[in-house]
Amino acid sequence: MPTTERNAPIDVPRGLKGVVVTDTALGDVRGLEGFYHYRQYSAVELAETRTFEDVWHLMFHGTLPDAAGRAAFTARTAELRRLPADVRDALPAIARSCALAGPLAGLRTALSLAGASAGFRPLYDIDADRRRADALAASALVPTLLTALHRLGQGLAPVEPRADLPYAANYLYMLTGQEPEPARARAIERYLISTIDHGFNASTFTARVITSTGADLAACLVGAIGALSGPLHGGAPSRALDTLDAIGTPERIDPWIRERVLAGDRIMGFGHPVYRTEDPRSRMLKEIARGFGGPLVDFAVQVEERVEAILAELKPGRELHTNVEFYAGVVMELCGLPREMFTPTFASARVVGWCANILEQAEDSKIIRPAARYTGPPPPQPVPAI
Amino acid sequence: MPTTERNAPIDVPRGLKGVVVTDTALGDVRGLEGFYHYRQYSAVELAETRTFEDVWHLMFHGTLPDAAGRAAFTARTAELRRLPADVRDALPAIARSCALAGPLAGLRTALSLAGASAGFRPLYDIDADRRRADALAASALVPTLLTALHRLGQGLAPVEPRADLPYAANYLYMLTGQEPEPARARAIERYLISTIDHGFNASTFTARVITSTGADLAACLVGAIGALSGPLHGGAPSRALDTLDAIGTPERIDPWIRERVLAGDRIMGFGHPVYRTEDPRSRMLKEIARGFGGPLVDFAVQVEERVEAILAELKPGRELHTNVEFYAGVVMELCGLPREMFTPTFASARVVGWCANILEQAEDSKIIRPAARYTGPPPPQPVPAI
Repeated sequence: MPTTERNAPIDVPRGLKGVVVTDTALGDVRGLEGFYHYRQYSAVELAETRTFEDVWHLMFHGTLPDAAGRAAFTARTAELRRLPADVRDALPAIARSCALAGPLAGLRTALSLAGASAGFRPLYDIDADRRRADALAASALVPTLLTALHRLGQGLAPVEPRADLPYAANYLYMLTGQEPEPARARAIERYLISTIDHGFNASTFTARVITSTGADLAACLVGAIGALSGPLHGGAPSRALDTLDAIGTPERIDPWIRERVLAGDRIMGFGHPVYRTEDPRSRMLKEIARGFGGPLVDFAVQVEERVEAILAELKPGRELHTNVEFYAGVVMELCGLPREMFTPTFASARVVGWCANILEQAEDSKIIRPAARYTGPPPPQPVPAI
Repeated sequence: MPTTERNAPIDVPRGLKGVVVTDTALGDVRGLEGFYHYRQYSAVELAETRTFEDVWHLMFHGTLPDAAGRAAFTARTAELRRLPADVRDALPAIARSCALAGPLAGLRTALSLAGASAGFRPLYDIDADRRRADALAASALVPTLLTALHRLGQGLAPVEPRADLPYAANYLYMLTGQEPEPARARAIERYLISTIDHGFNASTFTARVITSTGADLAACLVGAIGALSGPLHGGAPSRALDTLDAIGTPERIDPWIRERVLAGDRIMGFGHPVYRTEDPRSRMLKEIARGFGGPLVDFAVQVEERVEAILAELKPGRELHTNVEFYAGVVMELCGLPREMFTPTFASARVVGWCANILEQAEDSKIIRPAARYTGPPPPQPVPAI
């Protein structure tokens, strides 16, 4: 709503930083403690002890399932992986369209089509069960869409999902056509769980703004995907790996890092706007990487140590730790994911968090509509004749 | 960014009402005066004296064109109306997908595809000229996409755009295959100009949030279309007309309205959250409708008078005037637009406003990222074993 004389405009920090736009029971991030949680549980503990489907259930239903609930929910989501025929037919054209624009642009189009095709209705016109059913259908389909688009882009036929595989194993299977080793599937599953949600961010906020108008679920998700595709938001786990490639060999670590630090350049994979401590996701992913071992892991650990040491020397007091990108890239590389699929893999988990936020926001019915302040020349000036 | 201990959360009214999220030179709404403006000019005066292309130029470039500028800009936008081959090929499938979900869902998919296919790049990676070129390409294509999807949905072949027709005349031509009477084309042109922008609203805000992440132009527009499709935002100019149909005959006006007013029901086409006076768009559209005359117009004017009189009698002090929907519906009906195209026609003009907001927001480089407050049970609770 525009500002009117009746409502004095309210000034807040740029970018709405710190402005509380909603209450949430979905989770939070505690930057000083290096801790984040989904509902009342540590997200890292969930990633270490539970399946992806368990946490999906937690986010959608508010509770962790028991054994019977897990089986039922897992079976239900596995059924929803299959591409509807009309969406499948449209995917080759969508894959061609995003050759330049990238996989998130392809997902944006494909999910928009799939949601319309499934007849998703305005969120305020349907009840909570129907909304959750739509959210389940959309989020279950995302890995299938992403892997099919990727394969089509490579000139390969999409691989049909398998209902007998857990979420992460099926994701890797659809990507490669090979059933993954259990250790790799589990590593990716832990990564995916850890990235379902992470406090409030621009894509989650976008999803909630669109939800607040009462639009359908696909409209909300498509907006969130768009926001995630922005370089200031989505980041790119592949960038940190590109940095490791650029450094190349152990003896080049020190000169490379010194040069960057002295030039004041950002080092990809280091630093986070919220965490003052180590990023808890990074800590977990480093452990997973170390479990695999090998030269890439050794090199990554060495780079991490040298960055921290050189920063302590050249910029004392400016602590900088690895963020989620650094070891996520290493883990995804070790598990055979191609780099262009790093951000889409992130999106395949985050869609569950977006959906949970949409379901929560849809319980409210207040439109989110801030104001702008006009700062141009005073109107009305006469319109010049032509 | 999530709230951290370093940044105390800032409480504001629900839905961010009145919270200033940005400065803008694009325009504003003055609810108490019944006045709104694009840049420094009265929007209604622009609609009465200028072409759609003139105002599009004003919104994108900041100035009204002179005669030579008008000719060049009009020719440039006319060129951009044509569907790229790959988008054309995909439209039948998209039209089928939105049979249930409606034309805005179709536009969402088609524009997502078209933007990817055109290779739109992240807004922060390109300069202002390139951003404006993308915005021009996207907004020029929207009427072609909407009319083609509508015709395909009716089992008709799309009509190729004509570069020799002005914007509004070409829109009606692509919809019907017939060159429109000049008076009708001009009536629609005035409506379209009047609806390019209208202060800050949820779709404009969505577009700006996505822009703030640096995403590409299609990502921003697709989010805005999604927000507009929400019943709390987009409204529906066809609803007011449906009300006229429901009333049916002059002698039924009074009992029908009395019943609604006494029941406390909302009367579609009346009331606006910002305007305390008559909606200036409504005033202009009523004049246009009266210029055409005929039984529908007479009936609409009668209903308007009776609603105001009955409200004055039953709810003294509660002034309620027609909003833009009321006479917009009448004018579109008189100009031969089918009712399901009323909201899409609105979107075909509003896309210019969204693009202008995106171009303005892209000059900033601060991500829009508010906070949420966690209100669930205190973490961490131990994760139960399964």
